[in-house]
Amino acid sequence: MINIPRGTQDILPEETKKWQLIEAKLHELMKLYNYQEIRTPIFESTDLFARGVGDSTDVVQKEMYTFKDKGDRSITLRPEGTAAVVRSYIENKMQGLPNQPVKLYYNGPMFRYERKQRGRYRQFTQFGVEAIGAENPAIDAEVLAMVMHIYQSFGLKHLKLVINSIGDIDSRKEYNEALVKHFEPVIGEFCSDCQSRLHTNPMRILDCKVDQNHEAIQNAPKINDYLNEESKTYFANVKQYLDELDIPYVEDSNLVRGLDYYTHTAFELMIDNPDYDGAITTLCGGGRYNGLLELLDGPSETGIGFAFSIERLLMALEEEGIDLGVENNLDLFIVTMGEEADDYAVQLLNKLRHNGVKADKDYMERKIKGQMKQADRLKARYTVVIGDQELENNQINVKHMESGNSETIRLSEIVNFFN
Amino acid sequence: MINIPRGTQDILPEETKKWQLIEAKLHELMKLYNYQEIRTPIFESTDLFARGVGDSTDVVQKEMYTFKDKGDRSITLRPEGTAAVVRSYIENKMQGLPNQPVKLYYNGPMFRYERKQRGRYRQFTQFGVEAIGAENPAIDAEVLAMVMHIYQSFGLKHLKLVINSIGDIDSRKEYNEALVKHFEPVIGEFCSDCQSRLHTNPMRILDCKVDQNHEAIQNAPKINDYLNEESKTYFANVKQYLDELDIPYVEDSNLVRGLDYYTHTAFELMIDNPDYDGAITTLCGGGRYNGLLELLDGPSETGIGFAFSIERLLMALEEEGIDLGVENNLDLFIVTMGEEADDYAVQLLNKLRHNGVKADKDYMERKIKGQMKQADRLKARYTVVIGDQELENNQINVKHMESGNSETIRLSEIVNFFN
Repeated sequence: MINIPRGTQDILPEETKKWQLIEAKLHELMKLYNYQEIRTPIFESTDLFARGVGDSTDVVQKEMYTFKDKGDRSITLRPEGTAAVVRSYIENKMQGLPNQPVKLYYNGPMFRYERKQRGRYRQFTQFGVEAIGAENPAIDAEVLAMVMHIYQSFGLKHLKLVINSIGDIDSRKEYNEALVKHFEPVIGEFCSDCQSRLHTNPMRILDCKVDQNHEAIQNAPKINDYLNEESKTYFANVKQYLDELDIPYVEDSNLVRGLDYYTHTAFELMIDNPDYDGAITTLCGGGRYNGLLELLDGPSETGIGFAFSIERLLMALEEEGIDLGVENNLDLFIVTMGEEADDYAVQLLNKLRHNGVKADKDYMERKIKGQMKQADRLKARYTVVIGDQELENNQINVKHMESGNSETIRLSEIVNFFN
Repeated sequence: MINIPRGTQDILPEETKKWQLIEAKLHELMKLYNYQEIRTPIFESTDLFARGVGDSTDVVQKEMYTFKDKGDRSITLRPEGTAAVVRSYIENKMQGLPNQPVKLYYNGPMFRYERKQRGRYRQFTQFGVEAIGAENPAIDAEVLAMVMHIYQSFGLKHLKLVINSIGDIDSRKEYNEALVKHFEPVIGEFCSDCQSRLHTNPMRILDCKVDQNHEAIQNAPKINDYLNEESKTYFANVKQYLDELDIPYVEDSNLVRGLDYYTHTAFELMIDNPDYDGAITTLCGGGRYNGLLELLDGPSETGIGFAFSIERLLMALEEEGIDLGVENNLDLFIVTMGEEADDYAVQLLNKLRHNGVKADKDYMERKIKGQMKQADRLKARYTVVIGDQELENNQINVKHMESGNSETIRLSEIVNFFN
């Protein structure tokens, strides 16, 4: 037997109903904020991710699905969404569109070859937003407000928004130098990843899971002390908007992003539920990337965005016991007795469906009792039984399954009954 | 600059709006017919397609994106949907579900490395349906009725449903033998593909685009003459249902499918518009596959399905001049004068959006005229201008953009205005 590829999952009908609800809600939310959907290909040139995600990252070094196509081009299944959206922005010259900033969102499968663990799949689904073309604290605030709105609209509580500023490119340059100076004398005590990060990516040492309790991390210089005036003002403005919007947040000066093109606002949304054994899980991460477009040979436009995995949102909903209210939608199940009635039901079904009635019948030659059971299992709102007598008298009983009440109507009136 | 991979496309906002409408409509249609969505991974074991699509097909031999993952497993980006749905059915033992038949649909990207040509992309989007577990002419009729319903519901006319029966496994075996006997003496005059098909796949010679005018194809034995009684009865029943459902169709005995697991009903939906230079284009293809589940080491259940590409549906809609009725959805654009008003607008926007109003403001520090232009471009239904005076008097003019009429309301009442 051929199995599903390791680390991937089938999303079966009981689950896809939830996905459909989540996606419909996300589309609706995006309309409220005037963001529009973009769909980029599942794979891109490997080069895009090497440059746009960063050669030194685990994602690029260890986790990509990279291969050669039949034209001998190196392509990679996308591990994240931002690089491709920015590639598309540049390629389609969106900086020239009259509507600015360009407010985009995407939703689709992403791929990372990671060790299998609960809630992590090698194919996962990322929803993300990018607002490109405005360097304005109000757009940062809009994006942060949107993150909160999304999660709140699914009924999630215990949300904790963590923010930081990593300043502009000058500020982070100075900060990086301070970090190198700080860690250089003790770097021998750190893991090999950190040792190689020292000169390529010193900020990422602060994130290191292996060395997180090392004293030198605890007392490392803080980015806040290295922000220049412009960066401080930008961050103060973002926070003022959040205050005015009554969006609670905490600041965490260790929330940094290692790559050079990240600037100013960085944020994560965590779920902070005391019932989770004290575990705090990141639901969503994002930030401003003023250097990314130029890095990819684009115009000097700036952007901000975030992304989250739908799988993790579903996990959070489940842990919090939130019911998405998936409804079973069948309006009518037609039970038939005899060949003539069965034949008639095929036509009736077609007519009902063309009139917007969600309806079904038996195709398994079940006896009447079996058909009734099938109607129950499908949670049909109504059932009718059609046999020779009903056809002859042009009369049927429409039974409301929940109440058990039934009503006698003319068979020819059944479409009207539902409209 | 890094470009999009050859043969793929970005679907940009003006287009994604159409995709969203099409997908929403398809989900709705599937509810009417009681089909449920399944989502399988983007890639599968290569073996699945070699067996499930067929080693001798062009798709498997020439067009697959196949590569090794980091665990040295050969995986392939799915070139079509049926094999994966059947793999999932078998792996999840869906034959044991109480609701039978299992009625599934899928929608997602597929991949074929084909020569670039208009309307063909290496990544395309396939929507498909599979009904597994019932061998019943009524379910074949349901599937055919659904195909017609889908295309009609988008407003397409000039639709031509072509059907055929390739009989059960015994019938097609006899037919294959007759074909070998018929073509063997003249096979030297055929293309090399046909020569190698003669013993692996003789039915596919009938489809050959190179040799389609060869006399031996014109006068080849017809499958209809080789159907046994059971197969004839099955086909007659399907046609009777179509007649009763007033679904017009034409029969074409050359409509065959080469692979051994296809049985009985085969069909294509063509668009047959005299304005297309006489070109007839296939929109959708499908058929019954009673042998596929066993071939993939599954239970001896039978299925029927179809698939079509959304890209091709969109092309057909465009050629027929059908407008999907994409709406611009912004309810309100807030124009601001001065810093205080701008600040106020950020908060107001948040309140409006949390109350379901699709609203936006300027983030580009445009002058008032530029903001008005932006409101126009976004086709906002209403605009308001907020300045110091409006804040002081708590009064604003809400202007209906289409009529030019405006109404003065209290600023604090604006959310109610939209609800």
